[in-house]
Amino acid sequence: MPTHGNLYADLPPPGSDEAFDTLLERPGMRIERIVSHGHASPAGFWYDQAQTEWVIVVRGEAVLAFEDGERRAMAAGDWVTIAPHRRHRVESTGPATVWLAVHVDS
Amino acid sequence: MPTHGNLYADLPPPGSDEAFDTLLERPGMRIERIVSHGHASPAGFWYDQAQTEWVIVVRGEAVLAFEDGERRAMAAGDWVTIAPHRRHRVESTGPATVWLAVHVDS
Repeated sequence: MPTHGNLYADLPPPGSDEAFDTLLERPGMRIERIVSHGHASPAGFWYDQAQTEWVIVVRGEAVLAFEDGERRAMAAGDWVTIAPHRRHRVESTGPATVWLAVHVDS
Repeated sequence: MPTHGNLYADLPPPGSDEAFDTLLERPGMRIERIVSHGHASPAGFWYDQAQTEWVIVVRGEAVLAFEDGERRAMAAGDWVTIAPHRRHRVESTGPATVWLAVHVDS
């Protein structure tokens, strides 16, 4: 795993799949970059994660929807902590949206 | 601790001290925002941390210097993983420079 890089380097081109890159991995935690180009979770799909996820939109925009009814429009700089097993989905993303996500066991 | 926010909200004004805000804290890890306005570590001072630090310049610019001789100029999007006890200092920062740091025990 590289020890340095740039979050905006080597962005996958529009049209390709949502891209996930691990930037740091340690026991019980992982940092990853996610690049979305207008992607959304499949209809009816919910992420249901055992870990806490702290996630920020660094560039672009997105809408997160939660099964409990909350809907969160996110622009650059917006972050949210998602508790374990809080079911959520990506309702929409703008072009070239860059996320940074930190997943933590506890 | 809030469960959401914006990384660019409530930036301290120029001239004040470097500002640290914890965004998430869990056993063995912590995420913090750091805002610098032209600050630098005192001459001869070295950070010597027990934890791994993963740090990114989200906005602005900075120069990190390492005791081993490496010098790293960082612009927006640049990130680096700093191993435990790798002594380093902030040589310089630009105005309104926003960092995101993840500190991990392991």
